[in-house]
Amino acid sequence: TISRLYCTSPPEAFDYHSIADSTLENIQDVLEDLVESDMTELGASSDITFSDGVLTARLGRFGTYVINKQSPNRQIWLSSPKSGPKRYDYVNGRWIYLHDGVELYILLSEELSEVFGKRVVLSD
Amino acid sequence: TISRLYCTSPPEAFDYHSIADSTLENIQDVLEDLVESDMTELGASSDITFSDGVLTARLGRFGTYVINKQSPNRQIWLSSPKSGPKRYDYVNGRWIYLHDGVELYILLSEELSEVFGKRVVLSD
Repeated sequence: TISRLYCTSPPEAFDYHSIADSTLENIQDVLEDLVESDMTELGASSDITFSDGVLTARLGRFGTYVINKQSPNRQIWLSSPKSGPKRYDYVNGRWIYLHDGVELYILLSEELSEVFGKRVVLSD
Repeated sequence: TISRLYCTSPPEAFDYHSIADSTLENIQDVLEDLVESDMTELGASSDITFSDGVLTARLGRFGTYVINKQSPNRQIWLSSPKSGPKRYDYVNGRWIYLHDGVELYILLSEELSEVFGKRVVLSD
């Protein structure tokens, strides 16, 4: 009899670039919608740019968010003017800050809800 | 007699935007020179961008540096792929990480010297 080996990728072998780009693009879309629909000073003084794996959101008086790929360790790094810096690993299909187990989307949803004064829910 | 009051600015009242922009432009210049003069794979796989107060240096396999203004608290924030995140305050004419007293230029000089394999000295 011939035994066949069906090789599967180890759990940590994910398509980092594709998934990270998709996450950042998703966040970019949400941010752009929030800024465009904000009719206050905040909307007028904000801008969102995404280039070469670095998403920058200047949100007027609230400060600047930077969310970027850190390819060598396959992470996403966040710099939040509200809560500071965090590094996210991709675990079970979510970007998680391993120190507290909180998902990137959850943290951003909470902070952006406060910044824009309305309910923001980030998800894939 | 008429006593005149000559008011001087308090020590913390510095021209944040001008000084922070100047610092970031200086770092940008040094990084661009380093990348342009690097004839290895590193030089070919790197790029430096500076836009709206956010300086991004993608340095090939070493990862991505992000150095940005955080205007609301008049700081410069660094995200280093070698040493992680730090927030710098302007103290006595230098951008200092208050937790360890190390100057931004000193840290970057050391790390960029390692990355590019030659002596790098950042200063105003």
